[in-house]
Amino acid sequence: MSNHTICVTFIPGGRIALERPGTTIVEAGAHAGFVINTPCGGGGKCGKCRVRFEQDAPPPTPADGARLAPEELAQGWRLACQTRLTQDAALYVPQSSLFGGRHQIQTMGSSQRLYAPDGAIRKVMLDMTPPHMEDDAPDLLRLEHALAKALPDWDGIADVFEASPHVMRVLGSRLRETRFKGTAILQDNCLVDYLAADVSPPLYALAFDIGTTTLVGALLNMETGEELDTIAAMNPQTIYGDDVLSRIAYAGRGASALEELHISIINAVQDMAVNLCSRNAVKTDVVYHVAFAGNTTMQHLLCGFDPASLGSVPFVPLHKHGIVMKASDMGLPLHPEAKAYIFPVIGGFVGGDTVAGLLACDAAHLDTPALMVDIGTNGEIVLIHNGTLRAASTAAGPAFEGSRISCGMRATNGAIERVKANADLEFNVIGDVEPAGLCGSGLIDLCGELLKTGVIGCDGRMLVGEEIGGTVPGAIRRRMRLGENGEPECVLHESGDISITLTQRDVRELQLGAGAIRAGVNILLKQAGISPAELRQVLIAGGFGSFIRRDNAQRIGLIPAEVPHDRTRFVGNVAFSGARWAALSRQARCAAEELGNSVLHVELSHDPDFAMEFALAMQFQGG
Amino acid sequence: MSNHTICVTFIPGGRIALERPGTTIVEAGAHAGFVINTPCGGGGKCGKCRVRFEQDAPPPTPADGARLAPEELAQGWRLACQTRLTQDAALYVPQSSLFGGRHQIQTMGSSQRLYAPDGAIRKVMLDMTPPHMEDDAPDLLRLEHALAKALPDWDGIADVFEASPHVMRVLGSRLRETRFKGTAILQDNCLVDYLAADVSPPLYALAFDIGTTTLVGALLNMETGEELDTIAAMNPQTIYGDDVLSRIAYAGRGASALEELHISIINAVQDMAVNLCSRNAVKTDVVYHVAFAGNTTMQHLLCGFDPASLGSVPFVPLHKHGIVMKASDMGLPLHPEAKAYIFPVIGGFVGGDTVAGLLACDAAHLDTPALMVDIGTNGEIVLIHNGTLRAASTAAGPAFEGSRISCGMRATNGAIERVKANADLEFNVIGDVEPAGLCGSGLIDLCGELLKTGVIGCDGRMLVGEEIGGTVPGAIRRRMRLGENGEPECVLHESGDISITLTQRDVRELQLGAGAIRAGVNILLKQAGISPAELRQVLIAGGFGSFIRRDNAQRIGLIPAEVPHDRTRFVGNVAFSGARWAALSRQARCAAEELGNSVLHVELSHDPDFAMEFALAMQFQGG
Repeated sequence: MSNHTICVTFIPGGRIALERPGTTIVEAGAHAGFVINTPCGGGGKCGKCRVRFEQDAPPPTPADGARLAPEELAQGWRLACQTRLTQDAALYVPQSSLFGGRHQIQTMGSSQRLYAPDGAIRKVMLDMTPPHMEDDAPDLLRLEHALAKALPDWDGIADVFEASPHVMRVLGSRLRETRFKGTAILQDNCLVDYLAADVSPPLYALAFDIGTTTLVGALLNMETGEELDTIAAMNPQTIYGDDVLSRIAYAGRGASALEELHISIINAVQDMAVNLCSRNAVKTDVVYHVAFAGNTTMQHLLCGFDPASLGSVPFVPLHKHGIVMKASDMGLPLHPEAKAYIFPVIGGFVGGDTVAGLLACDAAHLDTPALMVDIGTNGEIVLIHNGTLRAASTAAGPAFEGSRISCGMRATNGAIERVKANADLEFNVIGDVEPAGLCGSGLIDLCGELLKTGVIGCDGRMLVGEEIGGTVPGAIRRRMRLGENGEPECVLHESGDISITLTQRDVRELQLGAGAIRAGVNILLKQAGISPAELRQVLIAGGFGSFIRRDNAQRIGLIPAEVPHDRTRFVGNVAFSGARWAALSRQARCAAEELGNSVLHVELSHDPDFAMEFALAMQFQGG
Repeated sequence: MSNHTICVTFIPGGRIALERPGTTIVEAGAHAGFVINTPCGGGGKCGKCRVRFEQDAPPPTPADGARLAPEELAQGWRLACQTRLTQDAALYVPQSSLFGGRHQIQTMGSSQRLYAPDGAIRKVMLDMTPPHMEDDAPDLLRLEHALAKALPDWDGIADVFEASPHVMRVLGSRLRETRFKGTAILQDNCLVDYLAADVSPPLYALAFDIGTTTLVGALLNMETGEELDTIAAMNPQTIYGDDVLSRIAYAGRGASALEELHISIINAVQDMAVNLCSRNAVKTDVVYHVAFAGNTTMQHLLCGFDPASLGSVPFVPLHKHGIVMKASDMGLPLHPEAKAYIFPVIGGFVGGDTVAGLLACDAAHLDTPALMVDIGTNGEIVLIHNGTLRAASTAAGPAFEGSRISCGMRATNGAIERVKANADLEFNVIGDVEPAGLCGSGLIDLCGELLKTGVIGCDGRMLVGEEIGGTVPGAIRRRMRLGENGEPECVLHESGDISITLTQRDVRELQLGAGAIRAGVNILLKQAGISPAELRQVLIAGGFGSFIRRDNAQRIGLIPAEVPHDRTRFVGNVAFSGARWAALSRQARCAAEELGNSVLHVELSHDPDFAMEFALAMQFQGG
């Protein structure tokens, strides 16, 4: 096995997966969020999974030769289920090779959306007769008549036409500059802009996942649905505390403290918006819509709502339904009439990110009983069974996001993201550079491997020296030592004075986080009266999700051991996917509202068994 | 006859009329905007016009004695048609003495409105159960349920409940501070405020008439409809030109010039709003609604809309329908969610003030054919006949508002407002002080009297010396002289070095203004195919309207000579009255929209006869 990571780019959409050599294209596609068609079960028998290498196609396999014509092979077509990747590749995935059913997991693929842009914002080309002596109708009336003529679905009675103050101030002169031929931009039948036809740019939207630790944003073309770019950043509110409760406590110091938190997140979002726009040569004032998904506290702080009532029993949020407000009212300078959509929430600690995730997973159509676990600083768990959606949240801590771990880091260049224990520990480092730390997936993989090897016990204790069993390879045994504080640690990498280690404390953090999630899962299963083995689908979501190994996730207890591997899917950052859909589609926003209304909120701490479950779940499942 | 002016205050409402001694209460009421019941024709026979002197009732007339009981007489009750006022008086007018039919002229009376406050903004007292373990509903949902319970007409399905960003930011803490007992303030079912029950102030509205020369504003209680106060000011845009065309030309210099005009009027409105509020101990942030009526250009500049297209053929306005926008979007700092309503317009030069006037005159129910003439810097004329409303406008110039007249001034202290030619000219001066100038009504009265006396000819020429006929009293004859520029003038008052004179040029200004209006009236009558004698009602509106004498208005040609006096009514500033109603009542705003839609705009300059009519109308009707 090599430490080398290869970069696979999928076209169209530009999604990237970082993979170890030998990974099949189907797997790499899944990591990038595509579900490639494999009706024959990946046996190379149906030929439905064809993809095309843009260059340097590997030699055809026998199955390729049997299912594809010689000219197709020459063009670079291969079967995704049979072809293993050995080097960086750019792959074209035709629509016909994408899984088309309703049960697919939608995370990122721009070509396989459940929801398409549906014209809540739309452009209408108008060619009007200028006013003259016999037709001196007011400008807005002229425009309304032209719209009624241009739009087949326009109903003059039902469709109330309005114009925003901003556009009214420039409309008279713009109409005359353009000689009454131009592009009207409508937002739900309200005229929000009028531009000359030849300067009319595409309409853009932004989508954000506002995590407690991490922020992710995307710039989207509202007409085609195309994703132009994504961006990630730390949530600057982390200086006020790692978790939501410390943020709520800080906001409780007074109106200026709340304002400080609000401004801090707004500034970060604005920076991301400006960056996304400027590096794609898009002006911020052609961004007409923005959608936000975050946990309840993050959404409150984003909107400037007082989160105080989320800080004490009975943890009451301000709102349940999604919120629509002007982006300018939030302090975001996009188009003056740009609207912001903030997802509905389910409860004090199950927020809009969970709703967005359910939206992206098409929760209403999953094979049930199904479990969705979204792992972040808070872990949100949803159990779907018998038409009921039960949702709960647990404080998983920031370990899964690489925070509060001695050598933790975000999943960027230098992060160990995968670990394999053979004769020694072997690492996959993002960017194929010298290791700089451990990201969430690396932490899970490492602990899983160390459990398997037997140098971490089921109680989470790290073994050193004589405690270590005789079957453990020497190279691994030598990595285990006592640190300066007298606690055990595992050395991952040493270079000069710098050493990267996994400490006993780090393992305890992971134990706490995984235990909290597992306890929540168990309570929900108990309340619904079903056993883990009955689960038909387990969806593991989170920013790192695509890169975790099922074995190790089960070893550390994140996934019940009884769930077969083929029922578990890592679906990536579904909250972010849901936010992107809501940014583009009115229908998606309606579906989010329905989901928000249909979910039953379970307060885990109300369950008498929770403390016991948590204590039990702290135990690793082990090798 | 005395120069003394007496002050008559009407209760309830506090309306004031300034009158000469000897005026009947019915007349004074009409001047103040009340139509007092006179079913018997004012003959003292029916007793339906009873009013009560609050103190110092004059001795009863024989008719009083015949119609009223001794104890009523003792309480101060008198018949309004019989009693002549001799000194300042406060009069209570019971609802039963007000003209109750639909044909009354509504200008100001708060006790005889066609439209009452109808709850577009409303306060709802709520008493909610605070959240607890078994009821952790989000705050907004709790509030919505409480509203649904408190409001009998609330329909959970049809009534979409929203909350403004401003209230959402404070709602959580306010609900808890008030222990969930407080006052919700709703604007069309959108929550715009939530206050502790004990600090909840009344809801207020503002109404403005935005004239080319004069601005008038009122502060209104939105719950009772009571008018607390009014205020007047010069339109500061007059420094950019007297008439709308010069303002349009100035705005055409570029975006910054337009912004300058916009800011100038907004600042003036804001000053008036702040003054009205502060002198009535009302905070500006409890003003939830504001209505504006003005001519098309004034409304455009108020909203910051480019008036360029109003400056050239075919004089196209931006909008036809009324406009609703947030007051804050106009730059007015009232309640953050306060809405501004700007009246619909009829055409480039027939604006929202005309629609507001028609609303206040209840145009849809007048005795027709009816003519309404609103005299300001622009004269707007509406002819109502056979279910059709025809509207036109003419440039009357600012003479009627006391501007561009050598000794012109607004109708405030020191202004000569009435003139009577007996052995000499006798003047009524507002405030009973030394005369300082001539206001619009004084100008009309003076020219009318001089025409009657014969020192102004029907061609408008002022006579001096030997030209003056022998029957003219010597005192008047001596007032006529040649001014320094060699042109004739009439000396009204001399005190030391200062002399107040009416110049030949002033007379020409009046001639132009009255001629323009009269020509418009004639064209509309011609187009409708009716003669002046057929008019059933002539309503003369304008800021000065209540104080003009019909004789003199006919002498200068403002009113066709064929119209009997009893068909002419001076209805005051009806545009302002209409604005006040629109500020209070959603129904009034709907009615305004209907009126705006139903009026046919007549462009006078398109009529081939206009030039000839104008030339002919320049001729005074004379003595």
